[in-house]
Amino acid sequence: MDQKLITNLKENYQIIFNNVSLLEQAFTHSSYVNEHRNLHLSDNERLEFLGDAVLELLVSRFLFQTYPNVTEGKLTKLRAAIVREDSLSQFAKECQFDQAIRLGKGEENSGGRKRPSLLCDLFESFLGALYLDQGLEVVEQFLKQVIYPKVLAGAFSHEMDHKTRLQEILQKAGDVLIDYRLIKEEGPAHDRLFSTEVYCDQVLIGTGSGRSKKLAEQAAAADALSHIEE
Amino acid sequence: MDQKLITNLKENYQIIFNNVSLLEQAFTHSSYVNEHRNLHLSDNERLEFLGDAVLELLVSRFLFQTYPNVTEGKLTKLRAAIVREDSLSQFAKECQFDQAIRLGKGEENSGGRKRPSLLCDLFESFLGALYLDQGLEVVEQFLKQVIYPKVLAGAFSHEMDHKTRLQEILQKAGDVLIDYRLIKEEGPAHDRLFSTEVYCDQVLIGTGSGRSKKLAEQAAAADALSHIEE
Repeated sequence: MDQKLITNLKENYQIIFNNVSLLEQAFTHSSYVNEHRNLHLSDNERLEFLGDAVLELLVSRFLFQTYPNVTEGKLTKLRAAIVREDSLSQFAKECQFDQAIRLGKGEENSGGRKRPSLLCDLFESFLGALYLDQGLEVVEQFLKQVIYPKVLAGAFSHEMDHKTRLQEILQKAGDVLIDYRLIKEEGPAHDRLFSTEVYCDQVLIGTGSGRSKKLAEQAAAADALSHIEE
Repeated sequence: MDQKLITNLKENYQIIFNNVSLLEQAFTHSSYVNEHRNLHLSDNERLEFLGDAVLELLVSRFLFQTYPNVTEGKLTKLRAAIVREDSLSQFAKECQFDQAIRLGKGEENSGGRKRPSLLCDLFESFLGALYLDQGLEVVEQFLKQVIYPKVLAGAFSHEMDHKTRLQEILQKAGDVLIDYRLIKEEGPAHDRLFSTEVYCDQVLIGTGSGRSKKLAEQAAAADALSHIEE
């Protein structure tokens, strides 16, 4: 077993596997199994099947609890952005998992170690193995270190509209009253311009305008966000 | 709250909600909320978001444990067949959930109570509510009554090929040796016919023929299954 991986998991994530063969399986690509048939190894694909569902539940629960006022439609978009191949392969690299996977020679030579789909599967396999070895809440602890801080820092929030995002940020510290006030309507009916102000507990925090009331409110929220997030 | 639903859950599934308002929310469609704005109700959509992921994990874990020799590709197909809209709306009906959901008048009149997508969402919302109220293992107990017996009885196994299915059935009782023996090849090269026998612990249990070795083995497995499943 790769000692660097074991040290990495222990030192960076406080994870020590009870059943090291599960960890080994998570880091064994099918191409390696195919090239070493005499070793009778198992590849990581079944663990990936399980890990995918473990990740889906934990991320869903996290979003459900963290964003109590966000609609199902937006939660679904946010979840999709977090668990998509791009994101998961990035997490795998940040955890240095790419250095530890066992690949066949063909796969290695064709750049498999850098391929997003392979790294995404690896990340899920690892979660599946960790779940089998130590249960759901230990996987949650790992995600609290690797994924959730990024979500809270807004890395996936381009999936949310500005009004939703503003509401979430302002309500982090407790209940506040956010209201949007239409302050001006001008121009002819076919080319109308609306101007809106947004207030947080009666304090003006942003202004914006647009071709509809909705667009003007989004613009005001974006303006408020730009001040907050500076 | 619908007393028939509470009695149904208690008598048929041994489920008593601690927080009845969660159960109520699970059975409240957005169309009902829209028609009763003065009541300030919440619809079941966020619970559906969560329940979907709860179901995904539990079904994945069940399949992973029940079919230790089935590949990831086949597990994925089987899972998709179980959690698809058709199947879930059927489960909702069998649990008589369709009778308990609160719909708006428009939705009721347009046949919403029978619409598969609505019933599928309802089933997932219920699982989300049960998960929040009592945790993962109580949801597992419910699925053990409603879904898993159907899986074990083969209701979704058309998603598996015959050889895989035969292997799973025969290995339920412990490890057995299944082997396929090519007993005859006949005909010209462009129109070859292969005949195969399948043995379980050296006992002949099926025969079949086909245009390739693979097809002949599948036919032999299907023949064996037809005797076993009679």
